[in-house]
Amino acid sequence: MNHFTGLMAAPFTPFDAKGELRLETIPAYVEKMIADGLKGIFVCGSNGEGPNMMMEERMEVAKAFKDAVGSRIKVYVHVGHTSIRESQKLAAHAAEIGADAISSVAAFYFKPGSVKNLVDALAEIASAAPQLPFYYYNIPHLTGMNMDMTEVLKLGEKSIPNLKGIKYTAATIWEYQLCLNYAQGKYDILFGFDEMLLPALTVGAKGAIGSTYTFAAPLYLQVMKSFEKGDMEDARSKMFYLVEMVKILLKFPPIPAQKAIVKRLGIDLGPCRLPLSNLTKEDEQSLIKQLDDLGFFKKLETLPHAVNDKQKVAL
Amino acid sequence: MNHFTGLMAAPFTPFDAKGELRLETIPAYVEKMIADGLKGIFVCGSNGEGPNMMMEERMEVAKAFKDAVGSRIKVYVHVGHTSIRESQKLAAHAAEIGADAISSVAAFYFKPGSVKNLVDALAEIASAAPQLPFYYYNIPHLTGMNMDMTEVLKLGEKSIPNLKGIKYTAATIWEYQLCLNYAQGKYDILFGFDEMLLPALTVGAKGAIGSTYTFAAPLYLQVMKSFEKGDMEDARSKMFYLVEMVKILLKFPPIPAQKAIVKRLGIDLGPCRLPLSNLTKEDEQSLIKQLDDLGFFKKLETLPHAVNDKQKVAL
Amino acid sequence: MNHFTGLMAAPFTPFDAKGELRLETIPAYVEKMIADGLKGIFVCGSNGEGPNMMMEERMEVAKAFKDAVGSRIKVYVHVGHTSIRESQKLAAHAAEIGADAISSVAAFYFKPGSVKNLVDALAEIASAAPQLPFYYYNIPHLTGMNMDMTEVLKLGEKSIPNLKGIKYTAATIWEYQLCLNYAQGKYDILFGFDEMLLPALTVGAKGAIGSTYTFAAPLYLQVMKSFEKGDMEDARSKMFYLVEMVKILLKFPPIPAQKAIVKRLGIDLGPCRLPLSNLTKEDEQSLIKQLDDLGFFKKLETLPHAVNDKQKVAL
Amino acid sequence: MNHFTGLMAAPFTPFDAKGELRLETIPAYVEKMIADGLKGIFVCGSNGEGPNMMMEERMEVAKAFKDAVGSRIKVYVHVGHTSIRESQKLAAHAAEIGADAISSVAAFYFKPGSVKNLVDALAEIASAAPQLPFYYYNIPHLTGMNMDMTEVLKLGEKSIPNLKGIKYTAATIWEYQLCLNYAQGKYDILFGFDEMLLPALTVGAKGAIGSTYTFAAPLYLQVMKSFEKGDMEDARSKMFYLVEMVKILLKFPPIPAQKAIVKRLGIDLGPCRLPLSNLTKEDEQSLIKQLDDLGFFKKLETLPHAVNDKQKVAL
Repeated sequence: MNHFTGLMAAPFTPFDAKGELRLETIPAYVEKMIADGLKGIFVCGSNGEGPNMMMEERMEVAKAFKDAVGSRIKVYVHVGHTSIRESQKLAAHAAEIGADAISSVAAFYFKPGSVKNLVDALAEIASAAPQLPFYYYNIPHLTGMNMDMTEVLKLGEKSIPNLKGIKYTAATIWEYQLCLNYAQGKYDILFGFDEMLLPALTVGAKGAIGSTYTFAAPLYLQVMKSFEKGDMEDARSKMFYLVEMVKILLKFPPIPAQKAIVKRLGIDLGPCRLPLSNLTKEDEQSLIKQLDDLGFFKKLETLPHAVNDKQKVAL
Repeated sequence: MNHFTGLMAAPFTPFDAKGELRLETIPAYVEKMIADGLKGIFVCGSNGEGPNMMMEERMEVAKAFKDAVGSRIKVYVHVGHTSIRESQKLAAHAAEIGADAISSVAAFYFKPGSVKNLVDALAEIASAAPQLPFYYYNIPHLTGMNMDMTEVLKLGEKSIPNLKGIKYTAATIWEYQLCLNYAQGKYDILFGFDEMLLPALTVGAKGAIGSTYTFAAPLYLQVMKSFEKGDMEDARSKMFYLVEMVKILLKFPPIPAQKAIVKRLGIDLGPCRLPLSNLTKEDEQSLIKQLDDLGFFKKLETLPHAVNDKQKVAL
Repeated sequence: MNHFTGLMAAPFTPFDAKGELRLETIPAYVEKMIADGLKGIFVCGSNGEGPNMMMEERMEVAKAFKDAVGSRIKVYVHVGHTSIRESQKLAAHAAEIGADAISSVAAFYFKPGSVKNLVDALAEIASAAPQLPFYYYNIPHLTGMNMDMTEVLKLGEKSIPNLKGIKYTAATIWEYQLCLNYAQGKYDILFGFDEMLLPALTVGAKGAIGSTYTFAAPLYLQVMKSFEKGDMEDARSKMFYLVEMVKILLKFPPIPAQKAIVKRLGIDLGPCRLPLSNLTKEDEQSLIKQLDDLGFFKKLETLPHAVNDKQKVAL
Repeated sequence: MNHFTGLMAAPFTPFDAKGELRLETIPAYVEKMIADGLKGIFVCGSNGEGPNMMMEERMEVAKAFKDAVGSRIKVYVHVGHTSIRESQKLAAHAAEIGADAISSVAAFYFKPGSVKNLVDALAEIASAAPQLPFYYYNIPHLTGMNMDMTEVLKLGEKSIPNLKGIKYTAATIWEYQLCLNYAQGKYDILFGFDEMLLPALTVGAKGAIGSTYTFAAPLYLQVMKSFEKGDMEDARSKMFYLVEMVKILLKFPPIPAQKAIVKRLGIDLGPCRLPLSNLTKEDEQSLIKQLDDLGFFKKLETLPHAVNDKQKVAL
């Protein structure tokens, strides 16, 4: 069925100090992500501050990422917007630039009042790029929408010809397992809650999308490898290390905190745009120090033969 | 201090059966609202499905309403968007077309995490139309933002030179009263919870913005007149009639239900756009019948000399 | 129809430093409340820390208040509990001690899933004291239950013979107005959101229950008097003063803060029980100072002929 | 460290048609649970309708379960109550009857406002049975309390000498993993979200408490056995079967639905008490039919040598 396997990063969008796009940073960022063993990127989503950008900026950013990637890994474009018609424009543009798939959150100003209503809205969006696979982006803690995902698949199966799956960003792994198994695994259900990757693998996850994969993919890939080998003890302990890292991260506003980590790793993505709030100098230092105390950066640097090793992971 | 007094309607945006803008309906709609005694309109807000429209559509709609109005009553343009930069474009455009003021909700995808963060975001938006008064649009049940409005005024006073007030859409009248009295009434706090207009008048409201004013203004103006005359008994009983009307309305999805009422009054504004869901034929008939049973349309029609009478209301 | 008119206080329960009941404080407290012009007290509710007490304590407290009051003013007993059978015991006890009415919140561990379910539960409670009027205690922000109160009246009318009304503690005055007018005003709907008393009067409130009435009743009674006389300007300005007082109060945990105010007025009610958290010494001083700066205590003291004046208020 | 390992059921409380306790059903129910391979029971919790019972009933039920069990498996008693003093009585009683541990939810009428406040309240409860291990019962979706569980452990470590662990009923497995690893696994963190048992095992769960274990333990034990053997494929598929079962269950009010299942298995536990609502006859038949269609009851019956097999499971 040709589902996505491996890890997909949800990259941050680089801005300069004035909040203007800094597209020239994208190629190096992409090279790093490919070197880290990622199999795809998911652009202009929450992490990428899609909703903070203007329409033309979203298109430029998507194109810049796609251009930097070429055909080496997958590029998924998030097209969610309060206006379905704007979403359609973004979807059509994604097709034009050769993206591999599109994805969209539920409307989030007016909230769909039923699964039918949600699926009707998604169908309109998906129809604007009928040749591209479409993923519903389920992220209840940001959109406030808590719908039954198997119902979404059931209705979507009928009315969204290019429905390909769900980006599933929630802790409710049992529902995730239901989606994975819906119609004999027909749909590609990508797991989006990084700090629960190992539990998700247990129930059958093959692919995952996340923000921390933009800088910690080599460590997550080791979890996946240990899991695959059946070395649960090792997988668990490596997963726990990442959980500790996330725990530190979450003491700070998450998107700026992760940008600070990527900066520490050599790529300066600049600040976030309002209404996100940036880290103070002190917060940034505190974050980096706490991660240093955990040995995080050292561990990332000393992974032996990281790239080659990672490339071999084939889920 | 030149605050807005009287009623301002938040008109619906006319679409055709395919969901395309039908701007040609706007002039007649505007004439009706002016004839009904309204002193202003608030366009492209929640009611106007601002978030459901594309950028260029929002501009076209704002312009069409402004052109139809001329300078007869006030035109406020809602410029809220997930992207502050898009909001800025909408704000600049509002200035260009001669709008009297702009207003914006808080960001609603990423939610401001503090009053400071919110006010920083509002300041950026307001700065794009520095010559226009700016109103913060407080509507917690749609944005999920529950912040202390007196704090917003306190911080905004320092950093938003053109801050003019708040469109206050919440039932917490005591906080509304605090805002009205902030800095000796320096700010214009417009009340936005129609079914509580009378209680708001009691604590000092002089102006109000609402959706039901688009079709029931003559009745609300009678409440205001009775209140002004000190005939509380009459004001209360007239207010209660409107509360009963709203109670019926709220059995249905509110925006399509109100469009159906305006249609019954002679102006067909067409359906709503997804993700809003439209009324079925049966629902529409049931709504109209329930309002008929309440004598609503008859009452509206038989208000003696409605226009002249209303025009005299000077709050 | 014999509805309650005037103000009813929801007194705090006096504890000693170890958290034991200090019933001997109750008589003086009651005298103060009667002298302040109150027409009733509502005991063992949220304010009275009913849910923090043991069954036998709740009964002792109810009895002590009733004994101190005699028949001078009304005594309502709150009997809400997670267990309906415990509620029934409390209801029967309330009848035994001669209470004038009972009241109960919705269950709040398992939450009723429908109005029918809620009313079924209330019917069981009310049936344990069939000779006493029963009031449903609607307080959504504490119970998390947001049900349609007119539906509660409609179903309750059929299945709760002693249903007398609702203690309505919410800001949604328009629904409050619907309840007041339900079945030609058959039910007694007592308003419970002190800082919105004036708005509630506007729509027809005749009686109100609240926590701040335990210490600020004379000021609220002046609001009511001005409103009755039709002097809206004066009512509004006096209400605003009270809103400012509440605004200060709410910077602190409300129940301990109000106990501190009553202490400042001469009656030491001791601390609250866990899980409520008490004020630090500094917080207590800060609260009192802020109220002093507002002239609050001075104003209370210098109300001319407070008692006689107040007694004359007949709503 | 002597942590609990294996499965613990949270049994339902048997009532007769009038809602009176039917303690005589308990022995047979207990035998069934022991035969099913359970290693403990958790009585008077949410499932056991603890909050729906009177104090003396809670004690009788706890005693009846303990008496029926003897020392064959563990008996934990839930003592949560809105009143800490009532909780203390329940805790002391649990010690008296020889319970193996006590557990309590956070206060749930007044909600603790900070971790410190919560832990202070728990410390008071735990102190009433100082010789018994104490487990905090974390169940955010029922109590509305979302606190950082590692902070609870950190503060509790200092102020609750008999703190033994947490009954962790939430889907956030990453935090669960943090708790498991807190202080080198010092605390016993029992997993309480049945439909995610396999994911929890992955991160290190050794013990779990749940409602569906009261009737489906043999199937869950097979999941655990496959997991232990490293046969992840089999564990996943057996877990999925249970997820499908839970999905059916959750179409109905969960506690009455589970009582209906236990009844179908031969033990009639009667109805639930208000405010829980019971299944209609039709709903009950529909539930049983859907489970039959899944082959659920047949599968339970035909597990070969269920008891002996299960008894061998030693986690």
